[in-house]
Amino acid sequence: MSNKKKIAESAISRLSLYLRILEDMVEEGEPTVSSQTMASQSGTTAAQVRKDLSLFGSFGRRGLGYSSTDLVSRIRQILGLNRRWKIAVIGMGRIGSALVEHKGFFDRGFDIVALFDTSDFKVGSNVHGLKVHHVNDMRALVQDKNIEIVVLTVPVEAVTDVTDLINDSGVRGILNWTPARLAVSQSIEVKNVNMVMELEALSFKLSQS
Amino acid sequence: MSNKKKIAESAISRLSLYLRILEDMVEEGEPTVSSQTMASQSGTTAAQVRKDLSLFGSFGRRGLGYSSTDLVSRIRQILGLNRRWKIAVIGMGRIGSALVEHKGFFDRGFDIVALFDTSDFKVGSNVHGLKVHHVNDMRALVQDKNIEIVVLTVPVEAVTDVTDLINDSGVRGILNWTPARLAVSQSIEVKNVNMVMELEALSFKLSQS
Repeated sequence: MSNKKKIAESAISRLSLYLRILEDMVEEGEPTVSSQTMASQSGTTAAQVRKDLSLFGSFGRRGLGYSSTDLVSRIRQILGLNRRWKIAVIGMGRIGSALVEHKGFFDRGFDIVALFDTSDFKVGSNVHGLKVHHVNDMRALVQDKNIEIVVLTVPVEAVTDVTDLINDSGVRGILNWTPARLAVSQSIEVKNVNMVMELEALSFKLSQS
Repeated sequence: MSNKKKIAESAISRLSLYLRILEDMVEEGEPTVSSQTMASQSGTTAAQVRKDLSLFGSFGRRGLGYSSTDLVSRIRQILGLNRRWKIAVIGMGRIGSALVEHKGFFDRGFDIVALFDTSDFKVGSNVHGLKVHHVNDMRALVQDKNIEIVVLTVPVEAVTDVTDLINDSGVRGILNWTPARLAVSQSIEVKNVNMVMELEALSFKLSQS
């Protein structure tokens, strides 16, 4: 694992958080923002904020703070949010169908353009205006619609078969909502969502206090 | 924000990950594990692993590695997983009801003991064997069942009212699945789950490659 990757993992989620804080400031008409303000709103230190931003070039001027609008556009660029991404959701269970209706994805540049399932019962139906396709049609649809990211919410039993289809489809990234570790081609990036780990962070905090 | 808290935020999610790796090793009958092995399986460096573990005391012996079973039990203790937690889920929409059925919570010591909703249509119904109560009964049930953590999955419009009820209920922690920032009493710990930020981490990685 390269050092570059290691930096990214922890700093990137803070950048996402800074972006939200900065967008609020732009909306409130604040032209500049200090690292101290960003730190206190994001639960970190001013030194950490400056260090995170410096990883991606030099921003801001000592004593003057950062320009809110400049920083928003730079962070959007860093995070790859200065463009739109076509994504598919695989698995139309409760979580999959909840994700399809989540407005936040569209607002951030993620367009859900295809839905997949394995069940004959669901294939052919409509979820939030989109037709559900069989996973066997994934490769054709990924190519046809230029889908780069898939969100995986299938039951554990289906993971191995569906992962094979994903590997073969040409997608570049997977957001994995299943508890399984995926066996993917080296060229595919995986980000795991772990619902239990979120609770563990909370039980840690409560055990300390 | 204290320095203690800052250490925790990033190290804790790695500890959760180390725990999963170590449990796999115990299951496979591996008596000891090196920081190098843990690092390569968790996508970090051996130095980072040693540093994370040293935050919570001294483990392992140079050249001999760590005892897998000892480390499992120490990390479980650090994360507050050497006990069971009683939790409630508030909001019986798609995500709320999917969480109720998620076996992973029980396996990690989180017992879902109460469900809440605001809608007359849902209150009184059963989800996965548990009765859905009205949010107005939260305080009584939290006290009665010793609930310490609530998982919040209500629609954004309901957040303000429900947060007031939570503040008044005596719970200690909230896992917040809503996009809203919660106005909670200082004594309550909040952990935010942000579904869009997970996708941003992926778009960042894809933009780099």
